[in-house]
Amino acid sequence: MNKQELFENIKRKKSFLCVGLDTDIKKIPQHLLNEEDPIFAFNKAIIDATQDLCIAYKPNLAFYESMGVKGWIAFEKTVNYIKENYPDQFIIADAKRGDIGNTSAMYARTFFEGLNIDSVTVAPYMGEDSVTPFLTYKGKWVILLALTSNKGSHDFQLTTDTDGERLFEKVLRKSREWASDEQMMYVVGATQGRAFECIRKIVPNHFLLVPGIGAQGGSLEEVCKYGMNSMCGLVVNSSRGIIYVDKTANFAEASRKAAQVLQAQMGEQLKAIL
Amino acid sequence: MNKQELFENIKRKKSFLCVGLDTDIKKIPQHLLNEEDPIFAFNKAIIDATQDLCIAYKPNLAFYESMGVKGWIAFEKTVNYIKENYPDQFIIADAKRGDIGNTSAMYARTFFEGLNIDSVTVAPYMGEDSVTPFLTYKGKWVILLALTSNKGSHDFQLTTDTDGERLFEKVLRKSREWASDEQMMYVVGATQGRAFECIRKIVPNHFLLVPGIGAQGGSLEEVCKYGMNSMCGLVVNSSRGIIYVDKTANFAEASRKAAQVLQAQMGEQLKAIL
Repeated sequence: MNKQELFENIKRKKSFLCVGLDTDIKKIPQHLLNEEDPIFAFNKAIIDATQDLCIAYKPNLAFYESMGVKGWIAFEKTVNYIKENYPDQFIIADAKRGDIGNTSAMYARTFFEGLNIDSVTVAPYMGEDSVTPFLTYKGKWVILLALTSNKGSHDFQLTTDTDGERLFEKVLRKSREWASDEQMMYVVGATQGRAFECIRKIVPNHFLLVPGIGAQGGSLEEVCKYGMNSMCGLVVNSSRGIIYVDKTANFAEASRKAAQVLQAQMGEQLKAIL
Repeated sequence: MNKQELFENIKRKKSFLCVGLDTDIKKIPQHLLNEEDPIFAFNKAIIDATQDLCIAYKPNLAFYESMGVKGWIAFEKTVNYIKENYPDQFIIADAKRGDIGNTSAMYARTFFEGLNIDSVTVAPYMGEDSVTPFLTYKGKWVILLALTSNKGSHDFQLTTDTDGERLFEKVLRKSREWASDEQMMYVVGATQGRAFECIRKIVPNHFLLVPGIGAQGGSLEEVCKYGMNSMCGLVVNSSRGIIYVDKTANFAEASRKAAQVLQAQMGEQLKAIL
């Protein structure tokens, strides 16, 4: 999916919502444990209930890997289910990968060849040659960590160097040379408020993947105020705030309602540019 | 395995060699492709041929993930084979993981609970709360990226901040407060030469996992000269230089010979402290 197609989906659905599939066997409704594949059964129900309200799904690899082989099967089934039934959805493998060149090339093969996923999150610590192997796939996206939503983002990402530049700013400035805004997005936490202004000075046209609203406390309004651009430029994720709002047999309907609330708020925010 | 036990193994085997299991279906000997599980068959042969010459094995997750479910099965079988047959081997899941707290907790569950692996490599970009969930497991190790072996290590890791500290030094200094040298090691590339001196000033007693000799061009002699401490303090990895030296039916014997060369060099270097 290219940038224009993503924007078309946003306009059509009046939503830039990404639903995070952080599916934990310990948190899903009890009755699903009788299913042959409880993780996939849960995901399928959530996807069917939210697909018209969101433009992206983000399975978080940690949750699938923690179940070993069964988890990988559920992950693959989930990706294939989305691709077959809702091909306009942008799929993000939230994996935070990154290693030396030949190893990053293997991770890229996993997500882009094996599973034909649209994008993968990548950590920048190891620099250019740990990221570029992901960029050899036309039409696929790297979503690079810039300024994350957690408390630990202050430990290193905000460190100012001798040129007066903070680490996350250096990551943005250097990496925008590695690929255009047709292949690169950035992770910026919703909890970072005014930092979106600084980020937009460096990468005015890139899409940003924004986690951290809901359970982590970020504000959608603030994110839009400082982060939205003329093509929206935002994919805002909610995981726990949508998928775990109810643990009864009505969980999917409850998730839909939670997604509707966010979609309505996003529709309001989009009026500024549509 | 604790630090003293690791040192005892090093003394007994006169080796601090780690064999990297970067097993790529496209690079293993052709005749193995007839096996039911070629990846595991290859690993088993390499492990049996090298186990008395090394003190650790490091399967690289990227290579297993790239094969999807089959890869995960081969990975689990490999780990279980080492644990059952060579329980004195230290196992490193080379995964370069790291995410917000609840997600890192899931990765920790994968490697430490599900598979009972000794250690996992972790990327520091997201800071303290992305690392600490791995540290709640007694007897398990985090191996944190500090100064990696690749060219891209220059992009961010060597950035000097306004206090005159380079990013990798800040990572070392801050993270040594998160856990002792009984739970934390650091990745330092063999290609970094004199930087080992700076690193030993900050973390004199920690073990370092050192990739980058062989295919990547690092020197074992230099690593030992500047990086060895009184408990050795080094686990030096070789992957391609051992496992892919021969593609015939004699591949395992050839790998053994390559490992013997390194083990003999390590035995020489250990004379300085034993």
